[in-house]
Amino acid sequence: MIPWKDLYSERVRDIKASDIRELLKLTKRPEIISFAGGLPNPKSFPVEDIYRISQSILLNNSDEALQYTTTEGYIELRKFLATRERNVGVDATEENILITSGSQQGLELITKAFINPKDTVFIEEPSYLGGISAFKLFQASFKTIPLENDGARLDILREKLKKAKDRPKFFYIIPTFQNPSGITYSMEKRKELAEIAQEHDLIIIEDNPYAKLRFEGENIRSFKAIAPDNTLYLSTFSKILSPGFRMAWVCAPKEVIRKLVIVKQATDLCSSSYIQMITYQLLRRGLIDRHTPWIAEMYKEKRDIMLRALEEHFPPGVTWTRPEGGMFIWITLPEYMNAKLMLNDALKQNVAYVHGGAFYIKGGYNHMRLTFAYMDNDKIEEGIKRLGSVIKTYMH
Amino acid sequence: MIPWKDLYSERVRDIKASDIRELLKLTKRPEIISFAGGLPNPKSFPVEDIYRISQSILLNNSDEALQYTTTEGYIELRKFLATRERNVGVDATEENILITSGSQQGLELITKAFINPKDTVFIEEPSYLGGISAFKLFQASFKTIPLENDGARLDILREKLKKAKDRPKFFYIIPTFQNPSGITYSMEKRKELAEIAQEHDLIIIEDNPYAKLRFEGENIRSFKAIAPDNTLYLSTFSKILSPGFRMAWVCAPKEVIRKLVIVKQATDLCSSSYIQMITYQLLRRGLIDRHTPWIAEMYKEKRDIMLRALEEHFPPGVTWTRPEGGMFIWITLPEYMNAKLMLNDALKQNVAYVHGGAFYIKGGYNHMRLTFAYMDNDKIEEGIKRLGSVIKTYMH
Repeated sequence: MIPWKDLYSERVRDIKASDIRELLKLTKRPEIISFAGGLPNPKSFPVEDIYRISQSILLNNSDEALQYTTTEGYIELRKFLATRERNVGVDATEENILITSGSQQGLELITKAFINPKDTVFIEEPSYLGGISAFKLFQASFKTIPLENDGARLDILREKLKKAKDRPKFFYIIPTFQNPSGITYSMEKRKELAEIAQEHDLIIIEDNPYAKLRFEGENIRSFKAIAPDNTLYLSTFSKILSPGFRMAWVCAPKEVIRKLVIVKQATDLCSSSYIQMITYQLLRRGLIDRHTPWIAEMYKEKRDIMLRALEEHFPPGVTWTRPEGGMFIWITLPEYMNAKLMLNDALKQNVAYVHGGAFYIKGGYNHMRLTFAYMDNDKIEEGIKRLGSVIKTYMH
Repeated sequence: MIPWKDLYSERVRDIKASDIRELLKLTKRPEIISFAGGLPNPKSFPVEDIYRISQSILLNNSDEALQYTTTEGYIELRKFLATRERNVGVDATEENILITSGSQQGLELITKAFINPKDTVFIEEPSYLGGISAFKLFQASFKTIPLENDGARLDILREKLKKAKDRPKFFYIIPTFQNPSGITYSMEKRKELAEIAQEHDLIIIEDNPYAKLRFEGENIRSFKAIAPDNTLYLSTFSKILSPGFRMAWVCAPKEVIRKLVIVKQATDLCSSSYIQMITYQLLRRGLIDRHTPWIAEMYKEKRDIMLRALEEHFPPGVTWTRPEGGMFIWITLPEYMNAKLMLNDALKQNVAYVHGGAFYIKGGYNHMRLTFAYMDNDKIEEGIKRLGSVIKTYMH
């Protein structure tokens, strides 16, 4: 018998399935009111548009759609995305664009291309679970920068940069409707971070899946548009079209894209040509842009219902964010509470959430991430009500 | 300005775009008769079946098809593939199956999970380019085992295993209609390799994309069916359905699948649910099985045309393999010839191939890989004729 456990590489020897994975399986039970997963609402999928476009591609372009495509991605899609960047003032061509199989792949390719074991990565605290797991897979060391309502604590970033013995490889940020906190960096903070990045030659990974899902307030420029030479930008169609498509892209300096292309070639050769062509045709015909405001409107209603329910049912001493877009509200419980332990009680009441610890390197257990996007409206209030009662049983 | 080149990880610092990549771009010119890429013939794509099935999935199951799915893959597809394994005598359940985005991803996940820098990997000589690049990405050391007509030189494998200071992590084989050589391991060699593997606790990665494309001779058991406890098995729908789907799977001991699932989660979360559901429905309705013999027949005709043309147009002193299936014929030129240098002359005659060096760690330049699957029948003879003339100009 092969002693499998002794043969794994150092990078994976100690990685374990996260408890979140197991939780998300639980939440598939129909009686559960789940605020846990980061799943878009299936009502947001433009099924009819996808239906018509995939028909027309198979009728007219099957030779290309079902064949291998280039590692860089379908050229028309890359050109379209580059044009979009130019329209918001970013100097980009298709050579700045790499199509990836979800933003998770973008994160993994970038990590693989930049991180040696023990390299330092700066992350927000809290940060996106999938980012953390990609960086862990390549054995990064973490330094955390706490978030406040208008973005990361840049004073702490400056301090940690000054103290750092090793140059950090990058700072990973989700500046707009952050996952898990829902907060958005102010323009002031974006500009200040750009200055810091330029001063320290710091690479910023900007992960931007939610920006198009704005309910209120003014659109804000992506960090990339402010500091393009320092930024590796990730965005995705998962939240405005379909996560089942696994369609995302990286926008970065050409030199970096060329390297990532070689890495992606050894990783999976290319992303699905069929799906890339469907996505491009939907974009080109304006169908995604026409559909997105409708998704935002649906999510706004859900956010409002959740915020009202929180006011009504959560006890004093508990606070939460009020996101202007995206999918998440971040709950802060009194420090003596532990949302990880509380989860069992919540599940007994058939409500689920992700506890804050999942988004921290250490600690964070007095937080909860709630997704308002996924549940039907009539379930949201009921779920918050039940969750409020559970929390109340823990109040001192 | 960020000094990008100084910041890459050690694993990617020196990797370069392969010249093959550039060659394959050239071969897109319509005047080129290309025997170069490993592309299936577009006529092999079951477009109408895909058309009907994708319609029905979007009509009936869009909520699931457009949503995230589990990292392991669509459960029905995994169950179906496990049943197939049981039907050929392999003791498997869905827990032995992981769906991957092409077999290249399977190779990459396995490499990531097993290879530390400098770990030894045994490969066939010649071997598949994409396998070599995945292993290189994780800084493996290579030991090569030459191939002969009935499989790898197992005497040399034994010798190298005896001499090895470090335990090799695995031996990567493509035992059926090998890429690039077209050869198939005899049952005798499969059994002998199984004994060696069991004796040395050697992991075998069996890459098996072409087995269903058999033109003649008897079906032969996969290596996995002979030594299931030692084998990490990869197969794919790329050659019998569509490479643009990026649909493949790993069949391996449960312990390994569990580890690969955690690795895949950090890599790309999951493969496309939409494509997995299309693939499953095509399988379940028997449409892929009904279609595959037709592809094999088409390829057999092309192989026969190419073999006849080789007899007629290639000069004495040149030899080639006679594959019983798959997509490739392997040419051996006299040792003094260099097919890499010859390629420019071939391209001037508008014919392309991949030179043998691409499939070797070192040397191999007196070989060519020819794909018979891709070109239209009437171009195959003309291409071989031109290639024969080019070779003749190099004869001493």
